[in-house]
Amino acid sequence: MTNIAEAQLIALDWGTTSARAYLMGCDGSIMAERSASLGIMHVAAKAKEQSLALDVAFAQALTELCGEWMENYPLVPVVACGMIGSQQGWVEATYRTVPADLAASEFELVSVEIAPGRRMHIIPGVLDLKKLPDVMRGEETQILGAVELSDNNFDSELEQLFLLPGTHSKWAKVQGRTITEFSTSMTGETFALLSTQSILSNLIEPTVSVCWNAFECGVQVSHSSDGAADLMLTAFSARTLVLTGRLQQTEVSDYLSGLMIGAEIRSVIGAWDGTVLPPLTICGNKELSTRYKRALKIFGITEVRELQGTAPRGVWAVACALGLLQTSTV
Amino acid sequence: MTNIAEAQLIALDWGTTSARAYLMGCDGSIMAERSASLGIMHVAAKAKEQSLALDVAFAQALTELCGEWMENYPLVPVVACGMIGSQQGWVEATYRTVPADLAASEFELVSVEIAPGRRMHIIPGVLDLKKLPDVMRGEETQILGAVELSDNNFDSELEQLFLLPGTHSKWAKVQGRTITEFSTSMTGETFALLSTQSILSNLIEPTVSVCWNAFECGVQVSHSSDGAADLMLTAFSARTLVLTGRLQQTEVSDYLSGLMIGAEIRSVIGAWDGTVLPPLTICGNKELSTRYKRALKIFGITEVRELQGTAPRGVWAVACALGLLQTSTV
Repeated sequence: MTNIAEAQLIALDWGTTSARAYLMGCDGSIMAERSASLGIMHVAAKAKEQSLALDVAFAQALTELCGEWMENYPLVPVVACGMIGSQQGWVEATYRTVPADLAASEFELVSVEIAPGRRMHIIPGVLDLKKLPDVMRGEETQILGAVELSDNNFDSELEQLFLLPGTHSKWAKVQGRTITEFSTSMTGETFALLSTQSILSNLIEPTVSVCWNAFECGVQVSHSSDGAADLMLTAFSARTLVLTGRLQQTEVSDYLSGLMIGAEIRSVIGAWDGTVLPPLTICGNKELSTRYKRALKIFGITEVRELQGTAPRGVWAVACALGLLQTSTV
Repeated sequence: MTNIAEAQLIALDWGTTSARAYLMGCDGSIMAERSASLGIMHVAAKAKEQSLALDVAFAQALTELCGEWMENYPLVPVVACGMIGSQQGWVEATYRTVPADLAASEFELVSVEIAPGRRMHIIPGVLDLKKLPDVMRGEETQILGAVELSDNNFDSELEQLFLLPGTHSKWAKVQGRTITEFSTSMTGETFALLSTQSILSNLIEPTVSVCWNAFECGVQVSHSSDGAADLMLTAFSARTLVLTGRLQQTEVSDYLSGLMIGAEIRSVIGAWDGTVLPPLTICGNKELSTRYKRALKIFGITEVRELQGTAPRGVWAVACALGLLQTSTV
């Protein structure tokens, strides 16, 4: 079986709500891919419900996700990133602090026994101990994957900016493979709350497609002098523009989305304070990437690279750097 | 019965969640006061539940709240302010636009029949048709009441600033009795959502008393250069400061409260852009007023007047201006 000889790594991106597994070949290519709603939150809920020990529940979830691969490839290393390494996860992987060389070879990963004689290694998150500290778990591995995919002429001096939009958007400054600083914006979570639970939610009429005009109108507001005020003040306009007949109810959701993504971008760019922004890469799903790309254009940032699914590539890079990959002599 | 001779007005502050009624004497003094959870939201829910017409449900609510006064004082006018005059209320009172002279004598109130031959007059809200429009209903009457209580030497040229903190905080600039412009901050509602439904809520351990240190620490952050970023970015620190052992879980709620009130104040003061702030009055409940007063101090604003329960005084002023009050010859 050539497949057995080829498989080199089981890479996991194990987050709060979902878990993704990748079976990777000797060149870092993805041979197979699985995902399930087996994030640590769901596993913890199931453990509680069934009175299971948490580590038993995590072991069951892992088997459910990729037990077949583990059986077929008993010698292939298993390496995970994400919230699985948090206090609420399987075993805690203490944060590395910035500046954090993501592919440092001397770094030791924490590991947990997943089967007799077999361990899963967990990549730690990163902590930025600035005045208002910041943390990430999983995103650092996506960023590393994105750096690896950047180009073939790797430049250890090259400064880049990475944006990972989502529930908690991350903006990270990276030099070579080293994260030097980063910030989190609770944009996705706040949008979900305001658009489903606040006074604005009553006004929202769902649509089948994105109202780009409304979205860009929201971004424009955050880009304008009105956007100097906090979102708590500008967001009320999603209501008053409807009351005054200037916005349709079908446009409210995208207007609010534009307002919020615009406020996030304004904050991050404002912190740069006139200096030239390093080249920017967005790592995220296509729809969110498109929103941010359109919004960034309004802020004058037109050169943006987009990448999807960089996590397995990052796990691969860590496994390589730490010598976890078997020489292909099976 | 001297009381019958004295009663001059039944004033109502009828909002979204609660309704308050005041029986007022000939000098504008409050003879009696009632309040109940009979806000328009609750009345609408009851109407739906019991398959009642909405106007029947409102009439029942009014009777429940102050039917006894209405019976005892059949000639006394009934005047209301607040969301009862909204599209979702009993009858819609079209907004007046800024600049709005709150006690203009030529203004006609909308009214609704509350008993055979008897009508309730409703004070309209105010609309600010700026680029991001703004609306208020009820607050304009509280502001008028506050102006009336300001001092005995009423100055029609005096510019004042009024803050009405709450679910949707209002900041209004007033000249004499005329509202010239205003803004809304969704601070209270956003705080409720973030502190009960977001990732931050898991960290919050309730306390019996306010942690003023944590509160002021939050305000300081919003006042500092870090506060230039939107709340969506700074709010994540309520989590990371706990993770890094710099904040206790019992302090998270007040830290977040300080952060948010600070962000609101920063936005409003920022819009003033260096010009001297007019004298400021806070109209709101004691606890909220105290929070804002402490936060304003950190922003260098130390002279703040506090007033509570100004709505009936505002209704009284409107009733006077429009000649609704009977000459006391009963």
